[in-house]
Order: sequence, then structure tokens, then C-alpha cells
Amino acid sequence: MTLRDLIERKRDGGHIDAAEWHAFARDLAAGTLPDYQVSALLMAIYFRGLTDDEIVGLTEGMLGSGRTLELAHLKARRVDKHSVGGVGDKVSIVLAPLVAACGVAVPMVSGRGLGHTGGTLDKLEAIPGFHTRLSLSQAAAQVERIGCVLMGQTGEIAPADRVLYAMRDATATVESIPLMASSIMSKKLAEGLNGLVLDVKTGAGAFLPTLDDDLALTRTMIALGARHGCPVVALLTDMDSPLGIACGNANEIVESVQSLKGGGPPDLRELVLRFGAEMLVLGGVEDDLAAARTRLERAISSGRALEKFREIVAAQGGDPAVCDDPALVVPSARVREAYGSPRDGIVQRVEPRAVGKGITAMGGGRTKMADLIDPTVGFQILAKPGDRVARGQPIATILARDDASAAAGRAALDAAFVVGDGDVVRRPLISHRVTAAGVEALAARQSDGPLGTTR
Amino acid sequence: MTLRDLIERKRDGGHIDAAEWHAFARDLAAGTLPDYQVSALLMAIYFRGLTDDEIVGLTEGMLGSGRTLELAHLKARRVDKHSVGGVGDKVSIVLAPLVAACGVAVPMVSGRGLGHTGGTLDKLEAIPGFHTRLSLSQAAAQVERIGCVLMGQTGEIAPADRVLYAMRDATATVESIPLMASSIMSKKLAEGLNGLVLDVKTGAGAFLPTLDDDLALTRTMIALGARHGCPVVALLTDMDSPLGIACGNANEIVESVQSLKGGGPPDLRELVLRFGAEMLVLGGVEDDLAAARTRLERAISSGRALEKFREIVAAQGGDPAVCDDPALVVPSARVREAYGSPRDGIVQRVEPRAVGKGITAMGGGRTKMADLIDPTVGFQILAKPGDRVARGQPIATILARDDASAAAGRAALDAAFVVGDGDVVRRPLISHRVTAAGVEALAARQSDGPLGTTR
Repeated sequence: MTLRDLIERKRDGGHIDAAEWHAFARDLAAGTLPDYQVSALLMAIYFRGLTDDEIVGLTEGMLGSGRTLELAHLKARRVDKHSVGGVGDKVSIVLAPLVAACGVAVPMVSGRGLGHTGGTLDKLEAIPGFHTRLSLSQAAAQVERIGCVLMGQTGEIAPADRVLYAMRDATATVESIPLMASSIMSKKLAEGLNGLVLDVKTGAGAFLPTLDDDLALTRTMIALGARHGCPVVALLTDMDSPLGIACGNANEIVESVQSLKGGGPPDLRELVLRFGAEMLVLGGVEDDLAAARTRLERAISSGRALEKFREIVAAQGGDPAVCDDPALVVPSARVREAYGSPRDGIVQRVEPRAVGKGITAMGGGRTKMADLIDPTVGFQILAKPGDRVARGQPIATILARDDASAAAGRAALDAAFVVGDGDVVRRPLISHRVTAAGVEALAARQSDGPLGTTR
Repeated sequence: MTLRDLIERKRDGGHIDAAEWHAFARDLAAGTLPDYQVSALLMAIYFRGLTDDEIVGLTEGMLGSGRTLELAHLKARRVDKHSVGGVGDKVSIVLAPLVAACGVAVPMVSGRGLGHTGGTLDKLEAIPGFHTRLSLSQAAAQVERIGCVLMGQTGEIAPADRVLYAMRDATATVESIPLMASSIMSKKLAEGLNGLVLDVKTGAGAFLPTLDDDLALTRTMIALGARHGCPVVALLTDMDSPLGIACGNANEIVESVQSLKGGGPPDLRELVLRFGAEMLVLGGVEDDLAAARTRLERAISSGRALEKFREIVAAQGGDPAVCDDPALVVPSARVREAYGSPRDGIVQRVEPRAVGKGITAMGGGRTKMADLIDPTVGFQILAKPGDRVARGQPIATILARDDASAAAGRAALDAAFVVGDGDVVRRPLISHRVTAAGVEALAARQSDGPLGTTR
């Protein structure tokens, strides 16, 4: 069986079996497949999809192409979180130390930003000295010692996925749900997890266009996790506007530390507490979400969450002083400029894609993986959809490296902010909760209590 | 605009404009495009198709990526024939010298065999000394001198197409009608033609699965020709069983010479005369098909067609004695073995694909372009669908290079021949004639007169 035969079969809607997927992944990792054939197969998968069995076959093939974190001997259970990608999304940076401080280990392998979305690794590397390239054995030792690691994918983890991942962006096949699900789960299952929470973004800045797509991706990942003894809980969260205030790498670290100290924007805090509660229950340290939430709130107010973050930063070579006054430690933008509302009215939209692309245009993001980024550039988004604003009132701050960069930032904000006259119906921060048991719509519950308020 | 953007746009059903196709073809020819992106675009085209304007844009881009035969100064008009590919199809080898002998120049650029279909160049190279690698200026000089050249695609002709063509087979995108049409026409238009006839094979051994596909391809090529002052006439011909008796490179040369001498199998002769008549009318030396046919028959009976072939063979370095007793000149198979009918009955089918794949299995065909081939191997197919045969009666001859090769040949014939009891309704040799004016169904007319008999 040649790769050409697999392409033709998939092109015609046929089925590729588990042994064929395993061989494909093995050859991908070995680098023996012509990349033009691999990309043709990716595009055929984009159009034809994969069956459940095929997704399992591909995922297990990619998982098996590398090694896994050996953590089964730990007393603490391991739970991680994955986000499908948003703008201003620094949840992981707050969540990982917070959950670890509550006794659940978090071996977190994250990615870099690409396109309009930021990446956790890029944000962490805005902390002077912080490094994210750990071997699996270093990572396992750190998890054993302090309960958490924040690292990048190494050549040891699902190397077949690394090959596909790099090719998917260049071939416009990123949006394929079976390819997304198998890519994410092949890496997450390599972490040896007892549970996983998923943040699936919805709305204007979401990766997938419809709720049906979100649910299809979520159900696929839940099914993959179930086959490997890793229960998955997904929350569908709002990405109609950037999360929190800070967007950009260095200033998102500042906001993350504020959040770990009990401050920061309420939407960020709410997501951290909701995902954290799910993780504590999956990690077996609490039986219900309300008790878990209380435990998390105490870990923040007591300072234990911040101290855990300090341990992690120190363990990975970063300057622990970032936990004291982060704005003094991370590099700051040379140009800082207020952006005023173009008119009196009500903010209708703050387009996350425009904001994310603006950061890239200013020099803080990537259009291809090899791009170097400037961690200092970004925005403070001061007004959100539904806010009443006056003409000239600062609705954002531009953080730029020079005048040209600031001009690119202004242009992006011109595209991102829509100020009009009509009332705005805000989407709930969390619309659905999805588990192996099914889909729970949370929208109605959102408006009832404090859990549902987004600001 | 990057290639990634074009892939994404085509993936989503969008339109790529002429300037973008021209730039794409230019970069393809220059070798500056990552092949994994090119193949992803090919697969997106396979699924989404191309609009008429896009096909024109791609074809003209590929045509413009190279040079063209400069023959406009010739008095004789230039007409060529293209076949979508069959088994036992040696029509071009008889047709080109015959038409040239009647005063229409035939600058024929042919291809090599791949998969189950044979290639004109491979057959010609079974003639000792015959070479098919001519530069465009050598080719033009030969056409000017003797009215015909039989050559391969060079690096000068549509180099962008060469890149795509090589990639299409490996990526299972050969069957895309817009890619087929643009590939064929970018090469044919480079020949500076005044007309083109197309042989579109139908039936079990055909390239495309349905009549609608055949007509779609045909109409696309007619439209492309019309834009470049090159009228195209297509005949849809039967490929339910191999054409003629000889299949394989060397023995097809023997049969071709027999046909040029007025003998050979009647189905081969009929196709040669039907395509030839169209070419003489397109070439302006006759006004109607009946007169053209008479002229062709005279060129054969007078020996002028054979003499023209002798001139071509001599001009291209081959041994002209092939025109006297070809069986003594082309290399012959070491093993020659009769294949008997497995039972009494009526031949139901002779599967061309099984025959073609058998030749490859015996060492006479290619599974990839770099394969070397043995010109001596092949078959004589002695019985056709509808023929009554007795058990053990030789229905084929196997031409092999050794016992293993003969065994592969036997296995292929076991798959190819189906002998049963029912009557067989034979498809007409030529079912449709398609021109810019429309589609003419010829099936009814076939049974009326001698033009329609296939044996």
C-alpha cells in the first residue's frame, strides 16, 4: 500500500484502517514521505472528513510516533487545559499555577501564536529568562517536584503531528475538524493525563464558523479521550471580543499576575475559576464544582496561587520578580498612545481578528512559524461591546515599537471597533458545557447569577 | 497574494483570476513554489473544479511559461491528434505519416505510457535508433522539410505543465477534468496548430468514468482551442476492449506498419481513416469527410503513407528497414506462449485495464516515470467480445521475457478475458462526434454501413 493509494482512497470517500494510519504516522515521523503527497492527503481529508475509527487511528498513530510523559507513579492526578485559540486569552497562565496550588498536577504542553491568535509560550517568554524547551524527563521531574510545567512541544512528543501541524497552515487545511481533534489529542494524550478541560471559543474571533462545528470538534475530542481513560470536559466560551483588557505578549503577563493576585478583568477571572473548578473535580480533589470554586478562590486570596507561579518561573529560569511588580520586569513598549472613540455611542463590536492581526502587523505576531516577534507590542482594550462611550474617550491604548508600528495599530483598531447607536445583546461568557454525558446549554443560567456576569 | 491564499480561496470555492494563474505558472516553471502547496491546490481543484475563465487562465499561463513551435510561415496547415489514452492504441503512429503524406503538416508532441495505458513515444523507441528528444528548432526544421515530427515534450514546451503533470499522478489528481484539459491544451497550443482532433476513449478501459465526464472534457478543450484559433473535433471511441490485436511496444510497431501497408486489424484502420479525414478537412486539403477518406485510402494503397513513415524514421535516427519487415527489426520477446480459452462460449469481455496492467507486470510498462521498460513484452489479443470460442482455442499470445514474466501475463489474461454464454452487444467503435457546433450521436448510424463495423 503506497501513500498514493491512500490519497486516492480518501479522495473517493473510502476508509483508511488503523494499521495504515499507524504506518503513515511512523513514516511521517521518520521523514520518509514526500510532503507533496502528505499535503494532498490533508486536502482530501479536508473535503472528505474522517470516520470516528479513522480519527482514532490517526491520533493513536501520531501519539505512538513519539514518547509520553511518565507520571503514572505520582500520587497527584494530572489534568490539563487546552484552548482552541483566542485573542487576549491568558487563561492558561493563571490557571496552571492556581490548579497546581490546589493539589492537581498540571503538565501543560502549549503552542505558539500563529495568525490572529496568540500563544501561551510566546507570552511566557516575555518573562526575562523564562525558557519553555524542556525534555520529557526534565518536565516529569519538575511536575513531580512542584506539580506543574509550562512547556512547548518537543521532538519527543507526537513528532508525526509536528510534521502535519507545520504543513496544515501552509496548505489551508487547519480548519479540518478531524485534523484539529487528532492533532490536539495526540499531544495531550502524550501528557499521561487523568483529565482534560477544553476551551472552545465561539463568536466572531472563533476558529470554527458554527456551533455545530464546535460541538463536532468537542464530541470528537471527548470520544478520543474516553478511549484512553482521559475524561474531557469542554466549555464553549465567548470570543466575540478579546478576553480581558491586555492583548499582546508582555502586557498579558502583567494582567495574568494581576489575576493571580485576585485582581484583573472579571471575564478572565471567571473563566479561570470555571475551568479550574472542572479541573479540581477531574483531578479528584473536590467532588462538586461549587466546592472546587471556593477552594480556588482561597488559593488566590491566600497568595498560594501566586507563590506556585513564582516556583514555576524560577524552575524554568525566569525572573521571579515578575510576581511582585510585573510591569517593571517584562519589557515595555517604546510608544504608548491613547486611541479615542470616533463618535458618541455604544460599542457594537470589538473584532478579535482585527485586534489579533493588528498585533501581528505591529510586529508582535507571526505569519509563519519562523517569524521573530516583539513581545512589547499590543493593545489595552478599554471598552467592550455594550459600553456607552463619548467621542474622543480613550477606548484603547496602543503599545507600539515605533511610529510605523503605532500607525499599524491605529489602523487595526479602526477596523476592530464599531461604535453605533443600537443596544447590544452580549453573548454569555460560557454558553455550553459538554461532557461524555451530553451538551448542557448554560446561556439561560448565565443571566441569573454572578457566575454569568462577564464584567 | 501568496500561494496559501490561492489554496484557501479555491478550497472555499472562490475564483482565481488570470493574472494570478499566469504568476502561478511562471513560478511553477521557475521552481520557486513549495511542492506541498502546489499539491494542496491540485487537490482543492479536484474537489472544487475550475470555471471556464480559470481554465483559460491556467492554460494560457502554462502555455506562456515556455516557447512554441514557430511554423506560421509554412504553407501547409498544421493539424495534430491527441488521445486521452487507451490500450493497444497505436493510431497516432499510423495517422501522423498518413496525414502528412496527404499534405497536412503534423507536428506531434506525444507522451509516455503510465499506469495501464501505453505511450506513443515508448512504442516508437522500440524501433532501433529512433529518438524522440528534439529541440523545438530541430522539430520545426523537420516539419518544414518532411511535414511531420513525432517527438516528446521538451523543457521548452509548457514547463509549468511538466511540473504539474509529474505531481498529478503522485497525488491522485490526474482525473480532474479542468487539470486534464489545461494540461493537454497547454502543450497542443504550443505546437502552433490550425486544428486538433481528439480521441476520447469510452468504456471499460476509459480514463473518465461517465459519458458526461467525457463530454465535459471535450467541450472544455473545444472552448480552449476556439480562443486560440484552433478548431477542435473530438470523436468518442470505444475502449471496452484493446484496440487492434497487438498490445505492447514492439509488436504495436509491427501492427502499425501492417496498417500503413493497408493491412492490420479493421478497428485500427477504421479509426485511422476517421481521424485522418477530420484532419484533412481541418487542414483545408479537402472540403468533406468522404473525399478526405478516399484521399487517405489512396495514400495507403499507393505506398505514399509508408514512404512518409520511412522518411520520419530516417530523420529521427531510426532504422528505415522497419518499414519493410518490421518483425525482423524491432526486438522480439524471448518467450512466446499461446493462451487458450478456459471454456466453450462467447467472449463477454476483454478488460483493457487488466491487459494494460499485465504489460506493466511483465516489465513493459511503468508504475512511475523513472521506470525502465522492456519493449518486447506484450500480448496478441486474438478474440474480441462477441466472438464464439472453443475450450483451449488460442485467444491470445503472451510475449514475455522469461517464465516469471509469462506467468504474470497469464494471470493478467485470466483477469482480462471473461468467457460466458450470453450474446454480447458490442459498443459502436465511434459513438459521438463533438465540435464547436455541438454533439452528434453516431451510434445509430454505426450499424447501417461499413463505417460502423468494428472488425
